[in-house]
Amino acid sequence: MSASDLVALHPRKALELDPSLLSEAIEACWACEQVCGACADACLGEADLEALRRCVRLDLDCSDVAGVTARLLARQTEAEPSLLRAQLAACLEAVTHAGEACAEQAAEHPQCAVCRDACRRCLDVGQRLLAALPA
Amino acid sequence: MSASDLVALHPRKALELDPSLLSEAIEACWACEQVCGACADACLGEADLEALRRCVRLDLDCSDVAGVTARLLARQTEAEPSLLRAQLAACLEAVTHAGEACAEQAAEHPQCAVCRDACRRCLDVGQRLLAALPA
Amino acid sequence: MSASDLVALHPRKALELDPSLLSEAIEACWACEQVCGACADACLGEADLEALRRCVRLDLDCSDVAGVTARLLARQTEAEPSLLRAQLAACLEAVTHAGEACAEQAAEHPQCAVCRDACRRCLDVGQRLLAALPA
Amino acid sequence: MSASDLVALHPRKALELDPSLLSEAIEACWACEQVCGACADACLGEADLEALRRCVRLDLDCSDVAGVTARLLARQTEAEPSLLRAQLAACLEAVTHAGEACAEQAAEHPQCAVCRDACRRCLDVGQRLLAALPA
Repeated sequence: MSASDLVALHPRKALELDPSLLSEAIEACWACEQVCGACADACLGEADLEALRRCVRLDLDCSDVAGVTARLLARQTEAEPSLLRAQLAACLEAVTHAGEACAEQAAEHPQCAVCRDACRRCLDVGQRLLAALPA
Repeated sequence: MSASDLVALHPRKALELDPSLLSEAIEACWACEQVCGACADACLGEADLEALRRCVRLDLDCSDVAGVTARLLARQTEAEPSLLRAQLAACLEAVTHAGEACAEQAAEHPQCAVCRDACRRCLDVGQRLLAALPA
Repeated sequence: MSASDLVALHPRKALELDPSLLSEAIEACWACEQVCGACADACLGEADLEALRRCVRLDLDCSDVAGVTARLLARQTEAEPSLLRAQLAACLEAVTHAGEACAEQAAEHPQCAVCRDACRRCLDVGQRLLAALPA
Repeated sequence: MSASDLVALHPRKALELDPSLLSEAIEACWACEQVCGACADACLGEADLEALRRCVRLDLDCSDVAGVTARLLARQTEAEPSLLRAQLAACLEAVTHAGEACAEQAAEHPQCAVCRDACRRCLDVGQRLLAALPA
């Protein structure tokens, strides 16, 4: 049982959205928060830390931004579509940059391959949710 | 793929811990962050909000505390056992209080039944991890 | 001594920005995180909680969003202007909505008057920083 | 105007505490969240990053833990003393370890001197608040 299952239990339906798309987006954002945070820490423990500076920075940003985006999307009481759109747009920027930084390191560092994939999944579902959110 | 899978990929093993126990604890804390946050919001949307004041407060605390506990547990570079022990102990307090507040509302509000169960699972695995952490 | 003072000590200058404008924006975002979080809790303790539902929701969102925005702005290593712009734009949405919800309650609840003012300050300096950030 | 000023405006007084001590502790925790977060990022930008690995890790932990501690302390509706005590104890561990790691780097890196001082202030007021919190 997770936050996305709670979408179905909520006493209010604030937005006209496909519940499965909303749940998928919440899960993808939570996964990005986790995976980017763990990737930043794993990179911090690597011998060639110097080359991973940019990866650590963008992972930390992405972990923070994706986590807050998930929190907002999981709230359905008095939701504000314009705020959700703007925060989701920021999340798409965060996963784009962290995903690209990790893609460059993926051949050498397995955590970066995992993180790149989590960012790409979040980008994909996030773009679909952004298109579905009311203007 | 999640933060707990990244435990296995990390270049360092900071603590002598059963990786599956650590992963289980990280997952339970993340689940509590999500479920308690979503439960607080669902309660905020209920008609009998007055009776749910305590539930909302303790859910917000538990969501914040469990989320930070997961972040710390997922980091393995230069981990400090005494800090992990103290933060995990705080998490056990948070899930105990949120779990009890939700148990009282579970018959009337389905989100509280879900949240009570997530808190109990986190309490169970958290107690086992606390016993396993080095002093 | 605060994060904004640390702006001057940082070994890198990632962005061509007026340091005093950047510091002012970081401080305003931190203040919003604090004040909106405290306002949500104070409203949750009010007798007329029913009327404050929207205020609580938007305060929680604004506290989370402003806090993450401050974190990103305070980081200067490998900063990505397009991510900062997008997160700052989300923050402006958050303070606009929370500020308006609190303005409606300000005559009755002193915490809402304080919160409205913190949101307006953050909106003002945030708009100036957004105009100054590189495209 | 800050969260600590809102302590005085809150409709409820959950705990029998000196308001000025509570406010001072909230402010010190917020300052630690900011300063430790900015110190982690400044260290990440240093040429001798290798020697600062431990500092970055403990700063990130301390920023997260102190921020959550401030959030909990700033909430006065339905406060749970046993949770506040446990979270405050975790915060004292976090500022102790981050403060010691930064003290070792303070002669070479000005951000670490600032961060060490913020951690020491938080440790001092946190210990006084812990002694004053009801058992």
